[in-house]
Amino acid sequence: MIRTIEWTDEGVRVIDQRKLPHEEISLLLRTPEEVAEAIRAMIVRGAPAIGVTAAFGLALGVRRSSARTVEELEAEFEALCRLMARARPTAANLFWAIERVRRAWAEARRRNLPLPLLKEWVIQEAHNIYREDIETNWRMAHHGAALIPDPARILTHCNTGALATAGGMGTALGVVRAAVLMGKRVHVYVDETRPFLQGARLTAWELLKERIPATLITDNMAGYMMYRGLVDCVLVGADRIAANGDVANKIGTYTLAILAKEHGIPFYVVAPISTLDLSIASGDHIPIEERPAIEVTHINGRPIAPQGIAVANPAFDITPHRYVTAIVTERGIARPPYPESLSALAAQPDVAHAPAEERALSGDAPPSGSS
Amino acid sequence: MIRTIEWTDEGVRVIDQRKLPHEEISLLLRTPEEVAEAIRAMIVRGAPAIGVTAAFGLALGVRRSSARTVEELEAEFEALCRLMARARPTAANLFWAIERVRRAWAEARRRNLPLPLLKEWVIQEAHNIYREDIETNWRMAHHGAALIPDPARILTHCNTGALATAGGMGTALGVVRAAVLMGKRVHVYVDETRPFLQGARLTAWELLKERIPATLITDNMAGYMMYRGLVDCVLVGADRIAANGDVANKIGTYTLAILAKEHGIPFYVVAPISTLDLSIASGDHIPIEERPAIEVTHINGRPIAPQGIAVANPAFDITPHRYVTAIVTERGIARPPYPESLSALAAQPDVAHAPAEERALSGDAPPSGSS
Repeated sequence: MIRTIEWTDEGVRVIDQRKLPHEEISLLLRTPEEVAEAIRAMIVRGAPAIGVTAAFGLALGVRRSSARTVEELEAEFEALCRLMARARPTAANLFWAIERVRRAWAEARRRNLPLPLLKEWVIQEAHNIYREDIETNWRMAHHGAALIPDPARILTHCNTGALATAGGMGTALGVVRAAVLMGKRVHVYVDETRPFLQGARLTAWELLKERIPATLITDNMAGYMMYRGLVDCVLVGADRIAANGDVANKIGTYTLAILAKEHGIPFYVVAPISTLDLSIASGDHIPIEERPAIEVTHINGRPIAPQGIAVANPAFDITPHRYVTAIVTERGIARPPYPESLSALAAQPDVAHAPAEERALSGDAPPSGSS
Repeated sequence: MIRTIEWTDEGVRVIDQRKLPHEEISLLLRTPEEVAEAIRAMIVRGAPAIGVTAAFGLALGVRRSSARTVEELEAEFEALCRLMARARPTAANLFWAIERVRRAWAEARRRNLPLPLLKEWVIQEAHNIYREDIETNWRMAHHGAALIPDPARILTHCNTGALATAGGMGTALGVVRAAVLMGKRVHVYVDETRPFLQGARLTAWELLKERIPATLITDNMAGYMMYRGLVDCVLVGADRIAANGDVANKIGTYTLAILAKEHGIPFYVVAPISTLDLSIASGDHIPIEERPAIEVTHINGRPIAPQGIAVANPAFDITPHRYVTAIVTERGIARPPYPESLSALAAQPDVAHAPAEERALSGDAPPSGSS
């Protein structure tokens, strides 16, 4: 299993995704500042992975704190939350994870726990988020695999695999993995995903590693592959999903959705409930991160364009819900109309999030946290 | 003026387009074999430029020939035509240019010209093709500029500028240049055009050189730019146009056409009559060149994907005529239904191609060749 993120005694250990596939290097992030910078610089990327890493960043900050009073620690904790929230603007999972840890903090405070136990609660909640992410991916993969025909030619974009999550299955690529585990014959078309090349570098690497048949294409070839009848469905992840089902995801997703519609091909989004942002009515209100021009003008540190050319580099785009055939979550599959189906899924109690006593009763508990 | 291709005493001098924008180097092609290799390796690319270069390649071969009889020269000339025709499979202009020179040869043979004059006819026909290409681009630009609103945000793909032609205006980018010359305020969105990056390297370079406002984007951003209302029209070139108006052009064109339709944006193809292949009923019959995997897996000689990943690299795609708003040629603008409008344009006598005596009468002659 690919371990994207690990909690260690020295700090948070992450695979340096900028170096893949040429070098498999892990980086030790020793401070919350280093964690935030790793998220900003896309050493760690992928909405669920960002959430898990940010939670560990908070845990790291609290563990390292030399605060001598609860009030002092609380002020530091709030500053840590702001630090993490500034790292990247689009992925809902980042804010969801910070909010989860904040709620654990509030609960521990309500219980009047002493300073060492307050720290422990934050650290354990980060571990819960980590374990739940892996569990969630398995559930999503299971639900999603039922949608995949046999045989299937699947087009995917960006990286939605183990590297986009805490590790293991991944989101959209988790569905591919589950379909393979079920014995379905799949072939994956991998969009290279400019400018950061997550498809060429990361998804191709994961699929090669697991010997899942795959063909790398440039982003602008996807339409022609559909024209030639080579694509049975499109599977993508999401960075934020609005209440109406509009999806923010890696730049290029919107184009794939239009192409899929034009060719009568189902377009599936695979994302955990933590990607849902029901406070946002539609995609128009999702902030879209604009990243540095150098990601477009340079590859491997060398220029590919003339100096002085203006550049646009939106990291994400919005796919309106009307193009989305279904949204696969760990709680089941949402279909249009999304305002109803998504809010119904959001309202479901989540086994993985339930308090320990309920988990024991349900008989379906993940490795338990301290809460 | 950018001189893409030049005929010199030593051979055919071309700008090495693989080196742009970092180095402005010209290469001297001394033999027809070097000319064919330059076309194959995309040192020269762009459908009209390929046609002109191939014609010069034939001229070069005939000039260098040590054949002592007309029959010997004829055998060599036929071998040269086959050599050029093998260089690349998709661009109609390549085969059109070879056919033009072959017809000039046949006419010279019919006139029983002696060996030195036979050579001269071939060389002069290549020069005619060169001069007509520049003239043709001016005419296309003039017709096309009338379609451009003021102000206009224009999305373009690949390179259709001076570098894609004999020099000067270009095809689709020629329309942009003409609109600017007419005082229209234009802003160009330049698709980088993976895998060969003709947009990032060549179009960005041409636009910067002429101070035409432009923004470079990755191919997968085009849809989102349209979503945000930033694109008023799409202008592309063509490598071959079938009798029904289906267009073979750089990979990614088909996707742009679908995106344009979905957003209600006009999609214009700008190409000379030499791009028309009325012998082909529809795009289904146009051969699509598959190029080496290394163009996808490597950039600037360095890998961007894991070793061993399978790759598809179709250099072109087919855009069905139903997505094409209009086709701009040097003889005027074709609109649907294309079978009628294109065959009407093809049937028009072309001033530029007319024999010298007719040209003189028309008073609209390009600098004249010897024929």
